Amino acid sequence: MFEAGKLTPSAKIAIVGSGAIGCYYGARLAQSGHNVHFLMRSDLAAVQANGLTIRSVVGDFHLNEVNCHGSTEEIGPCDLVIIALKSTANDNLGSLLKPLIHDQTVVLTLQNGLGNEEKLAALVGGERVMGGLCFVCINRTGPGVIEHIAQGQINLGEFSGGPQERTHAIAESLRQSQIPCNVETSLPLARWCKLVWNIPFNGLSIAAGGVDTEVMLADPALSRLIKDLMLEVISAAARLDLHLPPSLADDMIENTRRMGAYKTSSLIDYLDGKDVELDTIWLEPCRQAMTAGATVPRLEMLCDLLRFRLNQNRQ
Amino acid sequence: MFEAGKLTPSAKIAIVGSGAIGCYYGARLAQSGHNVHFLMRSDLAAVQANGLTIRSVVGDFHLNEVNCHGSTEEIGPCDLVIIALKSTANDNLGSLLKPLIHDQTVVLTLQNGLGNEEKLAALVGGERVMGGLCFVCINRTGPGVIEHIAQGQINLGEFSGGPQERTHAIAESLRQSQIPCNVETSLPLARWCKLVWNIPFNGLSIAAGGVDTEVMLADPALSRLIKDLMLEVISAAARLDLHLPPSLADDMIENTRRMGAYKTSSLIDYLDGKDVELDTIWLEPCRQAMTAGATVPRLEMLCDLLRFRLNQNRQ
Repeated sequence: MFEAGKLTPSAKIAIVGSGAIGCYYGARLAQSGHNVHFLMRSDLAAVQANGLTIRSVVGDFHLNEVNCHGSTEEIGPCDLVIIALKSTANDNLGSLLKPLIHDQTVVLTLQNGLGNEEKLAALVGGERVMGGLCFVCINRTGPGVIEHIAQGQINLGEFSGGPQERTHAIAESLRQSQIPCNVETSLPLARWCKLVWNIPFNGLSIAAGGVDTEVMLADPALSRLIKDLMLEVISAAARLDLHLPPSLADDMIENTRRMGAYKTSSLIDYLDGKDVELDTIWLEPCRQAMTAGATVPRLEMLCDLLRFRLNQNRQ
Repeated sequence: MFEAGKLTPSAKIAIVGSGAIGCYYGARLAQSGHNVHFLMRSDLAAVQANGLTIRSVVGDFHLNEVNCHGSTEEIGPCDLVIIALKSTANDNLGSLLKPLIHDQTVVLTLQNGLGNEEKLAALVGGERVMGGLCFVCINRTGPGVIEHIAQGQINLGEFSGGPQERTHAIAESLRQSQIPCNVETSLPLARWCKLVWNIPFNGLSIAAGGVDTEVMLADPALSRLIKDLMLEVISAAARLDLHLPPSLADDMIENTRRMGAYKTSSLIDYLDGKDVELDTIWLEPCRQAMTAGATVPRLEMLCDLLRFRLNQNRQ
């Protein structure tokens, strides 16, 4: 499945979870000639009829013929399986993955937060598992229609240890498909680094009553709380031997100020009445922090406030 | 002003702040024959014309002739001044009090939270100052019309040290006016004890999005957070040498369950767009706790969330 430091054109790729992320990255790979198969649910008929339309800041394109399927049985064994399901649907992974796996299959999760690689490792064995962090602003605006608004980078890493040849090969193939890609030396470090932002901003955007980043950072008290939460996450990571500089907090806050009024993905899910990734973004990091002996009272309180909010939202 | 262990009938009493609390307790004292003068603002004309109407679970009554005044200059020096202003109006206390004070005047604040006695002590001298905790469910339903729904007890204490003869005398006069009254050995202990309830319930009723006690306690995550906050407040008090048993948390939570769907006074103020007593109920306790070396991260976070909410509410 690899040749000359990248995926062979014939390498069979499955995209499991064809929301905005899955459709966008899958379409980019297909556009550059890869053999991509999408598992689709609600958009299956529309994409079979009309293909995939990508409106992107780095160039619009349309895929007329898309290999889309209603089940993973129909797709069959693949060389690379890219998981772009919401982590709230992880309970279905076991049955979804089974038909896709052969002896050499690599499984790459693009999901948020902590615990996804562990879940996959339990299902298919840790040595097959990779993780990718997506830095992308993207929306599904209609059946088979994806709007790519900003960024787009994926940072790739291995679940078990440092980068391997395959890590670099997949990264190279992504880059050749117009997807900026870096290889991470430590996937856990990269995940915790992203959590330093996601935990306070995604969390408080819901817990403080449905507010965007600009509203949050315009308030001195909430800005201080954001920083306090960031410092808690940074020191929890340090307990796990993942060392991030405390100056990261101020840097991230300053960068976020420059983003203007940004609604976090969790807030958008919340406002749309969709499942929020409570477990992977907040609860699992909190569990790991406490298991490692870190003191994270603000994160614990945020978890409790979010649990309450999401329970209320369901009623 | 005292005789036979109680206030003399001629003792001149001023009620500063004639909302529900001031009107109710002042009316009870007037009803039992005391010489009570009310400082009134919005209800002055209505009460001059129609008197005060009290609808009370322990008996309705009407006061036809009420000594009500538009300024404290008009009232003049008093023997007992009862402060029932919202603490958010404390900046006016200096000018309001000046005309009411003679050599022997006692000033009793019925306000919530911490810092009110200190404020009064700075204005009139600590030896004159007393504090009372009100356990009462009461509303102003119209100009000069008060609805007394439940309870009514006042727990009285001295700002400087333990109970004195005057403490017991004023308590006795209150009891003879159908106001259940206990004397507290330690006013700070009593204030912190009440904060064990007020900090989480009043705070989260706003910070968790405008919810009553029943909704809060129906949620396991929020119930746990309420308990965690209570335990923080109890251990902060211990740092100040004010010892409350940790079992108080569970006891208060169980008692609150039995109250049903209760909207906290702070939530009612918040929903009505009125000032919430942020400083005395949360910020000052948090300051005192931190000065004493207590670790109160959840209380700090609650302060920040409330500051944000109240700033948003003002906009």
